[in-house]
Amino acid sequence: QNALLSGIGTTIFTVMSALAMQHGAINLGQGFPDYDGPEDVIEAAAAALKDGRNQYPPLTGVPELRQAVATHNRRFYGLEVDPNAEVVVTSGATEAITACLMAVLNPGDECVLIEPLYDTYLPVVKLLGAVPKLVRLSPPDWALPRAELAAAFGPKTKAILFNTPMNPTGKVFTAAELAFIAELLQRHGAYAICDEVYEHLTFDGWKHIPLMTLPGMRERCMRVGSAGKTFSLTGWKVGYITCDRSLAPNVAKAHQNLTFTTAPNLQRGVAVGLMKEDAYFAGLSASLQAKRDRLAKGLAELGFGVLPAQGSYFITTDIRPLGFNGDDVAFCRALTEEAKVTAIPVTAFYASEGAPSHYARFAFCKGDAVLDEALARMRAWL
Amino acid sequence: QNALLSGIGTTIFTVMSALAMQHGAINLGQGFPDYDGPEDVIEAAAAALKDGRNQYPPLTGVPELRQAVATHNRRFYGLEVDPNAEVVVTSGATEAITACLMAVLNPGDECVLIEPLYDTYLPVVKLLGAVPKLVRLSPPDWALPRAELAAAFGPKTKAILFNTPMNPTGKVFTAAELAFIAELLQRHGAYAICDEVYEHLTFDGWKHIPLMTLPGMRERCMRVGSAGKTFSLTGWKVGYITCDRSLAPNVAKAHQNLTFTTAPNLQRGVAVGLMKEDAYFAGLSASLQAKRDRLAKGLAELGFGVLPAQGSYFITTDIRPLGFNGDDVAFCRALTEEAKVTAIPVTAFYASEGAPSHYARFAFCKGDAVLDEALARMRAWL
Ligand SMILES: CSCCC(=O)C(=O)O
Ligand SMILES: CSCCC(=O)C(=O)O
Repeated sequence: QNALLSGIGTTIFTVMSALAMQHGAINLGQGFPDYDGPEDVIEAAAAALKDGRNQYPPLTGVPELRQAVATHNRRFYGLEVDPNAEVVVTSGATEAITACLMAVLNPGDECVLIEPLYDTYLPVVKLLGAVPKLVRLSPPDWALPRAELAAAFGPKTKAILFNTPMNPTGKVFTAAELAFIAELLQRHGAYAICDEVYEHLTFDGWKHIPLMTLPGMRERCMRVGSAGKTFSLTGWKVGYITCDRSLAPNVAKAHQNLTFTTAPNLQRGVAVGLMKEDAYFAGLSASLQAKRDRLAKGLAELGFGVLPAQGSYFITTDIRPLGFNGDDVAFCRALTEEAKVTAIPVTAFYASEGAPSHYARFAFCKGDAVLDEALARMRAWL
Repeated sequence: QNALLSGIGTTIFTVMSALAMQHGAINLGQGFPDYDGPEDVIEAAAAALKDGRNQYPPLTGVPELRQAVATHNRRFYGLEVDPNAEVVVTSGATEAITACLMAVLNPGDECVLIEPLYDTYLPVVKLLGAVPKLVRLSPPDWALPRAELAAAFGPKTKAILFNTPMNPTGKVFTAAELAFIAELLQRHGAYAICDEVYEHLTFDGWKHIPLMTLPGMRERCMRVGSAGKTFSLTGWKVGYITCDRSLAPNVAKAHQNLTFTTAPNLQRGVAVGLMKEDAYFAGLSASLQAKRDRLAKGLAELGFGVLPAQGSYFITTDIRPLGFNGDDVAFCRALTEEAKVTAIPVTAFYASEGAPSHYARFAFCKGDAVLDEALARMRAWL
């Protein structure tokens, strides 16, 4: 059997969700809403099912969705893309990221990754025979360490893969940080895989900036979006890649070998979603900002050290002020088993030695009553 | 960019479907029905959409579908499997096959493939750094060449990947052929990835036999099924892998890195489908057998050499009796552009030199009127 897969565990998200289920815990671990997505989006998908939209759609996606992705890029970022040659729809952002890596990496190529990182990034780079180069952000501000990043780039660098707004840190990359990355990509002739699934989940006036919009980046970036996070429908597994026409053919061929196509009825629903009025997108971030505030305030009152979250579904908390020194895994396990609230240990987002082990990540994409009940359970436990 | 992907063309199915569209041709190329799947299956998926089944399901599939897959294995093949530890649901059979290959192959391992072959098999084996070993079946009977197959196995063989009922040949592997493969797998300690998506599409009393049911094969086989072919819903992209609990963890971890999960509402629909009464499955094969007969008879009357099809959606035809000597690609292009009927050149299913180039593949999973109209157009053209 494959040694690399044999050597890694089941994803922390599945492990903690199962543990939550087993102990009747409120699951603030895996990032999924406990509320449903927009009715018109769901309605459109259901209507398409009954309308005979059930056979293979085009490899790169149904025309309505490719057009909607192009329109969305123009509307929010002024990015002009050809819906027929620069958009590839995938079965979720996980597939999108794997397809983009597969499209550009050759065995032996180096790929820069930023820690903390989402748990599929590293195994996929390795499974493709490429060599990961890890650069670590430091809490509590998670600023980009420029010298280390520059040092990670070299003659074998083919790509960088990073996530903004960022899971688990809630960091939104600044224009200056993105410009620094852009300069490195130019200098080294490298590509960027930009995991931007939380693009519409930013707070306090922070705005998401796609690296692809920076000068010279149009031909170097593969920008990944996802219906799961943008429409609170994480189970649909509809993702979309925007990239230059020079990259799209290889991305499409990778997709062809990974899943070939994605359910057309769900694609139709997502097309309706991307065309929704501005108020929808503004309402989404406002609603999540209120949830972030509610949970952050409650956690701070309980004594957690609450790190700022400028975007995403997640708050990172320092557990040392509570008297827990070190073991985030033991803390999250005890929290689940005893307090009946589940969080994710942040060490799960580190692949190399010396990770900080005093952080726990809480998802706030839940109903207010659920957040309040989770806080009450933790208060009783602490 | 990745050299292997840069070096291959877009899949023939997409190329020919696009050409069909462009020329207003009847598309008997890519294998998808022009009729819809069972109403109760579609209804169940639509109901699940509106019932809030829209967030991440478990990594290996929703419990109802894993249970239905286990029940289906027992009911049709007497195969007992644990729905909680021996079933992995995927986003279609393409992903299932890629996940199984990823689960077992290490770089440098050899994987035996049988030509003619489906067009994702070879690139995926190579992308994983493994070495394909091709064994070719010979028309018109496509019998397994035992000496060549035995010679393809060696100390580095990790797996075989094959398809029964087989696309494009319509071959159903016999019990004796499967026993021969089983013996080789035992002798070499190798695994089998069994692409069995056409399991319910067999004709004339031919019955599909999963290699996994042969003695000693329980622990060596990863058996792939698909809702697309079994329920005439090719766009849904819901596949399922049945394999021993010793293999399932690596298969699940591969799946985690490819798509992570599959839309829960479609999974619910497929669970309803797999529990349908025997009459459904018998009716499906009877209906396709009648379509095969209709198209085969018409093609023979037009002068095509019609090869037997014991299963699948496809008829392979010899174009030499029509006076075309050789170029199947040119024939299929002319057929599309001039006769306005699309077929797939069978050379597209060969990866190595010296493929026969006088075969065209026709899909018969279409309404009777469509098949008749295609025949009429070809009659006018010839
Ligand atoms: C695909 S499961 C993980 C969901 C998620 O994005 C997270 O919890 O970090
Ligand atoms: C996934 S597109 C190809 C469909 C098919 O199975 C075929 O036409 O051979």
